[in-house]
Amino acid sequence: MAEGEVRLKPGPHRVLEGSPWVYRTEIEPTEARPGAVVRLLSARGRLLGEGFYNPQSMIAVRIMTFSDAESVTPALVSRRIREAWALREELVGDRDAYRLVHAEADGLPGLVIDRYGPVFVVEVTSLGMNAFLPTIVETLVERGQPLAIYERGDLPVRDREGLPRVNRILYGSVPATVEIHEHGVIMQVNLLAGQKTGHFLDQYANRGRVGELAAGRRVFDAFCHTGGFGLVAARHGAQEVTAIDIDPEAILQAEQNARINRLDDRMRFVTANAFDWLRQASDQGPQFDLGILDPPAFTKSKDRVPEALRGYKEINLRGMKLIRPGGFLVTSSCSYHVSETEFIRVVQQAGHDAKRRVRILEIRGQGVDHPVLPALWESRYLKCLVLRID
Amino acid sequence: MAEGEVRLKPGPHRVLEGSPWVYRTEIEPTEARPGAVVRLLSARGRLLGEGFYNPQSMIAVRIMTFSDAESVTPALVSRRIREAWALREELVGDRDAYRLVHAEADGLPGLVIDRYGPVFVVEVTSLGMNAFLPTIVETLVERGQPLAIYERGDLPVRDREGLPRVNRILYGSVPATVEIHEHGVIMQVNLLAGQKTGHFLDQYANRGRVGELAAGRRVFDAFCHTGGFGLVAARHGAQEVTAIDIDPEAILQAEQNARINRLDDRMRFVTANAFDWLRQASDQGPQFDLGILDPPAFTKSKDRVPEALRGYKEINLRGMKLIRPGGFLVTSSCSYHVSETEFIRVVQQAGHDAKRRVRILEIRGQGVDHPVLPALWESRYLKCLVLRID
Repeated sequence: MAEGEVRLKPGPHRVLEGSPWVYRTEIEPTEARPGAVVRLLSARGRLLGEGFYNPQSMIAVRIMTFSDAESVTPALVSRRIREAWALREELVGDRDAYRLVHAEADGLPGLVIDRYGPVFVVEVTSLGMNAFLPTIVETLVERGQPLAIYERGDLPVRDREGLPRVNRILYGSVPATVEIHEHGVIMQVNLLAGQKTGHFLDQYANRGRVGELAAGRRVFDAFCHTGGFGLVAARHGAQEVTAIDIDPEAILQAEQNARINRLDDRMRFVTANAFDWLRQASDQGPQFDLGILDPPAFTKSKDRVPEALRGYKEINLRGMKLIRPGGFLVTSSCSYHVSETEFIRVVQQAGHDAKRRVRILEIRGQGVDHPVLPALWESRYLKCLVLRID
Repeated sequence: MAEGEVRLKPGPHRVLEGSPWVYRTEIEPTEARPGAVVRLLSARGRLLGEGFYNPQSMIAVRIMTFSDAESVTPALVSRRIREAWALREELVGDRDAYRLVHAEADGLPGLVIDRYGPVFVVEVTSLGMNAFLPTIVETLVERGQPLAIYERGDLPVRDREGLPRVNRILYGSVPATVEIHEHGVIMQVNLLAGQKTGHFLDQYANRGRVGELAAGRRVFDAFCHTGGFGLVAARHGAQEVTAIDIDPEAILQAEQNARINRLDDRMRFVTANAFDWLRQASDQGPQFDLGILDPPAFTKSKDRVPEALRGYKEINLRGMKLIRPGGFLVTSSCSYHVSETEFIRVVQQAGHDAKRRVRILEIRGQGVDHPVLPALWESRYLKCLVLRID
């Protein structure tokens, strides 16, 4: 079904080592139609595979197949979704919410599908993939008999792809909220209005780890969103949880989640800029035994990494100052431009400036339902460190 | 009790950012005695802390304290051991074998203590720390009422410190073997003759993860030592395990462990160079659903990293070829000169050359009883990747 050709310029290219991304600067001029499935040729004209072409995007070709034996067809997209699903069934146990399709890492560039019980949330961020929406819906309906399929389309990245920013129901009817279960906690997820796709599924296992550390502790959960980390801590015996987020709607939902789980007696919610809260609270000295720092990505571009690192240092320094000697800080970065090495360096500097002895007990990452492609280092985006603070 | 002074040369130094290591090239000439506790001064003469001096070692000063308020005394060494112990009690649950003291990361440079049930194994790799052996033994006896304390002194690194290579019993009497328990498996550990300190405690949690993936699978365990990974896989339902090691004594112990656990009916042991076995077996095509690659460090020096990377690539390429589509490969590197980024790159290249689709499901590391100091990147040494091979 390929309807055009794109040829690489001579020279080294990540795609030749298995990366699914070809940058605009790497290709010769082409007449291919935006959004078309194209054949990718080497500089010498050898067929390398097929992918989606989009001249508007920095990533001009997103590779779907790496051999001349396989073509991009609806059948291929459908098969890849089924394969991704089978892998999740092997890996996620009895979870009712998880990432079903993780884009490039499941051989489906520009496609993310999250499952929240009976509702599937689809995100399309490539013009080429958009043409396969009917196939995607059909496959999900056939394989999973969902209550509803919702398209989350209000993502800024869609502008660059030439896709409209619009949310819509693709199938069935979406309930106002869906209830999911995590580590003994019921989470009410508002799919129609929530940040990202309503809940940060990539931190699932890390929330579980926090639960294991929580018993008897005074906990803060900064950038708490709808309360995930704090709720799991409270459920697993935290003495008291203070959860902070700047978004009043997220806090309302978090409070509601606390009530549903009958954990509201030990949870306190603060609607505030977490930076400000951390600064003010840490000026009062150590008050907590376990802290969570799970901020949104501080940068989505390479140029702004130094600024992002300053932000990470600031919150980690403040977070460390809040922890009593012998406590724990579980600190994350989901900026893929910030490497594990850089993040550890920030933690070291923060500990040094806070005059606290810091040890890394665990280096963790995104969950198994968010696989990493070795050839695409950008797909290793979530770093989560469990720190002991003395 | 400091009896000398060492002054830093002007300029930047890692120790000023919290690293406990001062290299020989970083200090002014000094009259201090080898093995002495010395005061470390900045180039301008400010007291930075105290540590062990050894002019024979590349690392001339190993810092014990980072403030002018604390001195290196037997009481400090004893307190640090007790603190390390308390941290383990918080973290390791009901394990009977774990690392009790992890050197610099527990504020005790040159000291490693592993616990195997009632027996403690001590490794001293700094001349300065060696003077505190009586304190170390006394603290262990008081706090833990051990059956025995054994000093593992046959480490090449002791030559450079001017310490003799000798193994000896420091307290009690050491039984020929000790039984420990891991993930439902009994392991007989031979402390008097074993590699390292008898068993690789740093892979404990990763063995548990392998157990979770093992049910119904055909497994190979290359560089199996006394069988840890393979035994846990067999216990958790692996159909069949082939375990390979070049050391006939390790294989004898592994076979014995299989018998003790009544797992010998489903385990096969091969005494062979794992490189050769991997090459020969992989020439026959995919035969396994789960593979373990847990080689010894391929390099202990920076110069030989390229060679080490070639070694890692070779075994990972072969390992991938042995796995049936849809299987898993759990691959480790414990060379601290090889970064996580470099190791992932090796895995990517191996997958590319093996013409297999590889995804990283988890990036794991050493266990919580082997903490990492953020200021000492060398202490992040174990990388363990759970790969899906299609």
